[in-house]
Amino acid sequence: MSLRYISARISQQIDEELMSSIGAFSIDQLMELAGLACAQTLATVYPKRTYPRVLVCCGPGNQGVAWFAMLTTVRLTEVVEGGDGLVAARHLGMFGYTPTVYMPKPGSKDIYQRLAKQCQNMDIPIIPPSNDVEDLKKALASSDVILDAIFGFSFKPPMRAPFDTVLPLLSDSRLPIVSVDIPSGWDVEKGNELGVGLNPNVLLSLTAPKEGSKDFTGRHFLGGRFVPKSLDAKYGLNLPPYPGFEQIVELDSIPKPNTDI
Amino acid sequence: MSLRYISARISQQIDEELMSSIGAFSIDQLMELAGLACAQTLATVYPKRTYPRVLVCCGPGNQGVAWFAMLTTVRLTEVVEGGDGLVAARHLGMFGYTPTVYMPKPGSKDIYQRLAKQCQNMDIPIIPPSNDVEDLKKALASSDVILDAIFGFSFKPPMRAPFDTVLPLLSDSRLPIVSVDIPSGWDVEKGNELGVGLNPNVLLSLTAPKEGSKDFTGRHFLGGRFVPKSLDAKYGLNLPPYPGFEQIVELDSIPKPNTDI
Repeated sequence: MSLRYISARISQQIDEELMSSIGAFSIDQLMELAGLACAQTLATVYPKRTYPRVLVCCGPGNQGVAWFAMLTTVRLTEVVEGGDGLVAARHLGMFGYTPTVYMPKPGSKDIYQRLAKQCQNMDIPIIPPSNDVEDLKKALASSDVILDAIFGFSFKPPMRAPFDTVLPLLSDSRLPIVSVDIPSGWDVEKGNELGVGLNPNVLLSLTAPKEGSKDFTGRHFLGGRFVPKSLDAKYGLNLPPYPGFEQIVELDSIPKPNTDI
Repeated sequence: MSLRYISARISQQIDEELMSSIGAFSIDQLMELAGLACAQTLATVYPKRTYPRVLVCCGPGNQGVAWFAMLTTVRLTEVVEGGDGLVAARHLGMFGYTPTVYMPKPGSKDIYQRLAKQCQNMDIPIIPPSNDVEDLKKALASSDVILDAIFGFSFKPPMRAPFDTVLPLLSDSRLPIVSVDIPSGWDVEKGNELGVGLNPNVLLSLTAPKEGSKDFTGRHFLGGRFVPKSLDAKYGLNLPPYPGFEQIVELDSIPKPNTDI
């Protein structure tokens, strides 16, 4: 039985169950483990001696709300996207990297504020919000690798400013890119059909890989070591075993597809 | 400059700062990372092939409230002790161990309920609350190693039932013991002066080692890779570097004392 690549709908259902009164996880817990997995993936592929300066790009703070609003069991006020990036930036700082956070459209929610404050307490610079990309250009010129936490699986075109300008700039920088969950600009099910998405070197899928990532050809990791066996079985995920006490597992050797029904 | 062994007062101040509006951490975040560090410590010393069955012993759920009630900046409703044990049990389950939770005096707070539910969702048995120690005896007979998350640094004698019976039973079992933060029954500053405490093989200090652990002679680890450099400097902790992207560091090779002022 091979690893299942899941649809947007299934992905939403799993997230919903994890955070419902049944799964009992708080967003703080899941985001902490997801962000740690992001940082570990980057650190695994891009050692800090050679790639010390990480530009952590975070998406708009209200991205995730639309579909979450459909879920009655989830705490609506706590939902964020791009928060993974802030948690990852903090852990990368702890690992000895020199991260910089680029977050042009920060969310107003409490959790965003707290995660950003945690970065500031570690002297991690956060580029002030702006529609102007001059600051981004400067940051790219002094970075060694990019962590792409801009769009997650709830991205729908068209791409709004400043991200329509940001994504080509990231690509043109020719810096290596590590994307979180789904490369920014890709459709969660159809992949990079429109051709407006990033082409990352590394992808970290969270919980389970998404259908849209089936054609991804770089190094592919899985994170989110918090899915109970019962949930794995219910959705037929066939999640691979994680090594030792790691929070990530590389999918290279695992046979692909078995598409979503 | 050597690692500082801190007093109860300093330990409280650091926790307070981490969770204040300045530090901006939630208890969920800190407990997740602390519990993960507990699980990783146990897994480092006691591999699952030889020690698959872990008895995770958790303390009374209202232990931490007394001193926390003195702190105005901390969210009083969220404070728990022993929660580390529940988080560790879940991660140990994820690592492939077979944990059992012994929690004779569970707390009523929401976070306790959620952490316990997360264990139940992973089919981790929780021995029903009781003052009777028969269940504990049975569990000990079918365990390979103990994770001691019973009393943390706010423990003050006298030891109440059933823990006055529980601690000798754990010692008499002759199973290896991994203690969290300070061995249960030890004074956070004076150590095992009264002689009623456990004698663990392994200790995981959280954030910084406590004065009472100076005479501990087993394998000693440090966890809590979330202390910003500014806080380290403010309290002169001289925390050692953690290896790679691990959440724990072994203190063996680090010179001792430099007592609290």
